[in-house]
Amino acid sequence: MSENKNKVFFIMGVSGVGKSTVGELLSKELGIPYFDGDDFHPKENILKMSKGEPLNDNDRLGWLKTLNKLAKDQLKDQSCVIVCSALKEKYRTILSDDIENNTKWIHLVGSFELISERMKQRSDHFMPTELLKSQFDILENPKKAINISINLTPIEIVEAIRKELFDKSEFGLFGLGVMGKSLSRNLANNGFDISIFNRHVDGVEENVAVNFKNEYEELSTALPFDDIESFVNSLRKPRKIMLMVNAGKIIGSVIEDLLPYLSEGDILIDGGNSNYKDTKERCDYLKSKNIHFIGTGVSGGEEGALKGPSIMPGGNKGVYKEVKPFLEAIAAKDENNLPCCTYIGEDGSGHFVKMVHNGIEYVEMQLLAEVSSILKTSGNTPDQIADILESWKPTANSYLLEITIDIFRKKEGNDWLVNKIMDKAGNKGTGNWTTMTTAELGVPSTLIASALFARYTSFFKEDRMQLSELFKNKPSGRKLNATIEEVLKAYRFARIVNHYQGFKLISEASKAYKWDLNLSEIARIWTNGCIIKSTLMQELVETLKETENLLMNEKFIHQIKELKPSINKVVSQCVINELAIPCLSEAINFFNSLTTANSSANLIQAQRDYFGAHTYQRIDDDSENFYHTNWK
Amino acid sequence: MSENKNKVFFIMGVSGVGKSTVGELLSKELGIPYFDGDDFHPKENILKMSKGEPLNDNDRLGWLKTLNKLAKDQLKDQSCVIVCSALKEKYRTILSDDIENNTKWIHLVGSFELISERMKQRSDHFMPTELLKSQFDILENPKKAINISINLTPIEIVEAIRKELFDKSEFGLFGLGVMGKSLSRNLANNGFDISIFNRHVDGVEENVAVNFKNEYEELSTALPFDDIESFVNSLRKPRKIMLMVNAGKIIGSVIEDLLPYLSEGDILIDGGNSNYKDTKERCDYLKSKNIHFIGTGVSGGEEGALKGPSIMPGGNKGVYKEVKPFLEAIAAKDENNLPCCTYIGEDGSGHFVKMVHNGIEYVEMQLLAEVSSILKTSGNTPDQIADILESWKPTANSYLLEITIDIFRKKEGNDWLVNKIMDKAGNKGTGNWTTMTTAELGVPSTLIASALFARYTSFFKEDRMQLSELFKNKPSGRKLNATIEEVLKAYRFARIVNHYQGFKLISEASKAYKWDLNLSEIARIWTNGCIIKSTLMQELVETLKETENLLMNEKFIHQIKELKPSINKVVSQCVINELAIPCLSEAINFFNSLTTANSSANLIQAQRDYFGAHTYQRIDDDSENFYHTNWK
Repeated sequence: MSENKNKVFFIMGVSGVGKSTVGELLSKELGIPYFDGDDFHPKENILKMSKGEPLNDNDRLGWLKTLNKLAKDQLKDQSCVIVCSALKEKYRTILSDDIENNTKWIHLVGSFELISERMKQRSDHFMPTELLKSQFDILENPKKAINISINLTPIEIVEAIRKELFDKSEFGLFGLGVMGKSLSRNLANNGFDISIFNRHVDGVEENVAVNFKNEYEELSTALPFDDIESFVNSLRKPRKIMLMVNAGKIIGSVIEDLLPYLSEGDILIDGGNSNYKDTKERCDYLKSKNIHFIGTGVSGGEEGALKGPSIMPGGNKGVYKEVKPFLEAIAAKDENNLPCCTYIGEDGSGHFVKMVHNGIEYVEMQLLAEVSSILKTSGNTPDQIADILESWKPTANSYLLEITIDIFRKKEGNDWLVNKIMDKAGNKGTGNWTTMTTAELGVPSTLIASALFARYTSFFKEDRMQLSELFKNKPSGRKLNATIEEVLKAYRFARIVNHYQGFKLISEASKAYKWDLNLSEIARIWTNGCIIKSTLMQELVETLKETENLLMNEKFIHQIKELKPSINKVVSQCVINELAIPCLSEAINFFNSLTTANSSANLIQAQRDYFGAHTYQRIDDDSENFYHTNWK
Repeated sequence: MSENKNKVFFIMGVSGVGKSTVGELLSKELGIPYFDGDDFHPKENILKMSKGEPLNDNDRLGWLKTLNKLAKDQLKDQSCVIVCSALKEKYRTILSDDIENNTKWIHLVGSFELISERMKQRSDHFMPTELLKSQFDILENPKKAINISINLTPIEIVEAIRKELFDKSEFGLFGLGVMGKSLSRNLANNGFDISIFNRHVDGVEENVAVNFKNEYEELSTALPFDDIESFVNSLRKPRKIMLMVNAGKIIGSVIEDLLPYLSEGDILIDGGNSNYKDTKERCDYLKSKNIHFIGTGVSGGEEGALKGPSIMPGGNKGVYKEVKPFLEAIAAKDENNLPCCTYIGEDGSGHFVKMVHNGIEYVEMQLLAEVSSILKTSGNTPDQIADILESWKPTANSYLLEITIDIFRKKEGNDWLVNKIMDKAGNKGTGNWTTMTTAELGVPSTLIASALFARYTSFFKEDRMQLSELFKNKPSGRKLNATIEEVLKAYRFARIVNHYQGFKLISEASKAYKWDLNLSEIARIWTNGCIIKSTLMQELVETLKETENLLMNEKFIHQIKELKPSINKVVSQCVINELAIPCLSEAINFFNSLTTANSSANLIQAQRDYFGAHTYQRIDDDSENFYHTNWK
């Protein structure tokens, strides 16, 4: 916890554990005000208690709200200590309402025997044994408290609290690559106490965490490690450790490295682009070891991670609540200032949604590449392309459009830098997983496949150069008969199809895996912080509240009808001129397929029945019977 | 073994085991001629032996060939028994040359002590102990023989041979679905003794094997079972059992069901469309239990399986040799009368190749559906479409073209049956595996993905009907400005791209998995028996001998240049007229991408570097260094 941030320390526990003593000592130790909750009861309660009548929950409500207001008022300026038994979870919910992130629970714990023994020796605080018993009965042990045994002396207790609060971190970040570093700084900037870890590899990765800490002011209180055991021990329980390492087998081995040092109830958060099926398996595996696992997508690249990424956490909902304060604090904020982070659903759903995010991203990038190649073929320089894209902002703005404009403007000497870049596009797995998933689930996300394959084809650079010679596919001599306005409309049309397909894939997966995903919420957390944020995404937040199928939404129907003739023209012009536009072309073909009431798939069923006796259904038989014909 | 088929029974073993006695008894028992090999030695050999000089391999060569000729001559009319020590594998290879499938080896086996003891008691056949010892030294135990112990009396030995030969089958077929039944009849028609098995399911599958046997003349000697143990025990060792059950988990459980009854060295052949990765795992698993596993693709549908399918076996090469006589006998024959069955490669390669076969098939079917929809849109009736496709045979003939013609001609009452078929195309997994594989291996088999997705899209019939209304995508009012000749050329172009992609995927997988696949041989076994047989495939047999990349073959370059303008025109006409042609369209876009020397992928690399610091390479730096730019 950064010392410049205010906290309210609630000292809680059954009567007789010594809350007041410890509370006063702690307030002196920290130099902050002390309040005894009992002093804030209203007259009616005092009257009731003086008659020996026990308070009911209704009596307590106003009082708890008063204490909550007290805490809030204090927090405006400073930290404070408040003593209150707070035996039930619902009391604690009221006490910490709206200040969850600034509340620290300190639970003083002792056995019934010890407490009743001590009470007998105290003259100023008599309580019948019966009453103590009833307090133990209603006590609901808090999940997030620092538990301290009253076997210690009050001074030792305060020392233990200090140690727990100020020598330990509340969140751990494992792996200091580009994303891990940015997230660490983001957490620190949000006032969280963090421990940071990076492995030691002789001569390659040495003192990474220490050097990183020293580089940035905001990390002055961060605890740096390159030893796993010390890193884990530096964290308060239940520990929260975010793994920012390369997805794949490495995650598995990192988990094995951590396991020996973890305790029951600790939480691991995988913030990498792991495969959603692996995440499900890891949830199950760690559950068997009483360790919780949250698989979360994090989008925004280096800058997003630092200033506020879009975060897509999946896993057990109860466990999510424990990491929520951290994730929501560091997330980007949407136009209503709500965090671009929401609980997605069970097991691998967070990583699934992130995978589809990346699939949509592949397509958005490919579409920009294709329209740029059209604009280039029409004779525009990179600067002119940038100007044209700039003029598209009113109807097609997005983060990717903006960076594409920057890219086309970037010069190196007298030439544009983009012209110097090798045209072999890399990929890191999520695009091909999305394509595999779309094949596996039977949902045709054709644009994602198309964008992935465009990258693969780009990799066959040698073949392309040879074949270009053989077939004389040269850019000269092309005459594209299409206006800039038509290209823009084609681009907008394809983007709508892309977003339709992406959300369709999420919605079908939600049914298949019983995740009950909220499409509108997913669109909302994608309106800021992430790579695919755009004005179109903003529109979708509302649209997806009304319908899962955006092609059936009045507004989009209208847009599509306006845009369709342009993409027809642009694509056919590119085809005639032998300019490759796989994604634009697929957008139109998919749309034409999906709007064809009676397709040629009847022939395919006939063929399958002919050679494989696979049978077919008939349009004139609603009973869905299967027929087989001897076709010869 | 069917009794109407001729066999030569070679009785073999070291001197003194009683070959002549057993041979004569067996010939009487079976009512067939008996020959003592020793009677066929040429004069030189007899002279040499009479001098007490041992024969060398050179001396034996002519003699063994004489016996082989004797066997062949006999086989023309009848079976026979020939006695010959045949101690070495190479002697047996000569003896059974060209008649492997009609040869039965019966090996009489006894210990050195027993034989030398017996020989001492025989006056008519003296042989020194030294000589017997040398015979044991050179004896190479035959792999495929029936081994009978000479502890039995000669009469018992003949009885044991009878039992082994006539009460046991040489090949087992497990699973009598459409394909299993056809393959069983095919095996029986080729003279093999088979056992057939189908499970018993009360009220659903009862007496399937018995009823099936009774239905077909050729199965008169087949042994039918619905009990696994009896089925397995009815087979001669090493047992050869072909599994024709649904691919997937069922194969795994069938293997577990069989395992308790199998013996070391038995061979399981999975003839279903299993996933090649599963096949690899099963090979390894069964190896640990000393059971061999062959994963083989079988294509040809019901009719092909009966009359001769194309067979693609993968697994250990030595094991393949043991099942080769069966698989090659039942396979289709190519134009040179060679079997359309060849050893593909290690582990899952057979199923991999079959998977790609099916992927190519998906595309061939989809292309026919698309060109048919173009012809339909141009106003042709199904009969007219059939006539047009008929006219395409000279340049584009294939099995699928032929059945499509039959389909379009099929009438039901006054209407064409194809018009009655529901346009929701099914799939059974191989198409989606191919798409997943293409994504996983980084090889853009875009047409297979496109054909798969077209089937998926067809499944959203409700959506299609609703969206068709909303967007008024009605077939009326379309004017396709393209001739039938141009549609044919577009079709031919797309087929070339399809075959290019299919073989490219095989060739890249061959490198990735170190399978060393022979592309030309694969094309050859696809020239008959299978669903994708065609004149184009026939051309590829030669082409792929010369190059792995058919787009770089002179003949295909010439064809492509001739066809390209037509597909440009047809696709752009369809796009303008809003007719869905995803596969034709993708063929052209893929080709345009692959023949583009400098693509727009440079922008994608710049974008990746901008938001994710993924770095890029430069066209002016051959050292393949990676660069990062601060783009703002």
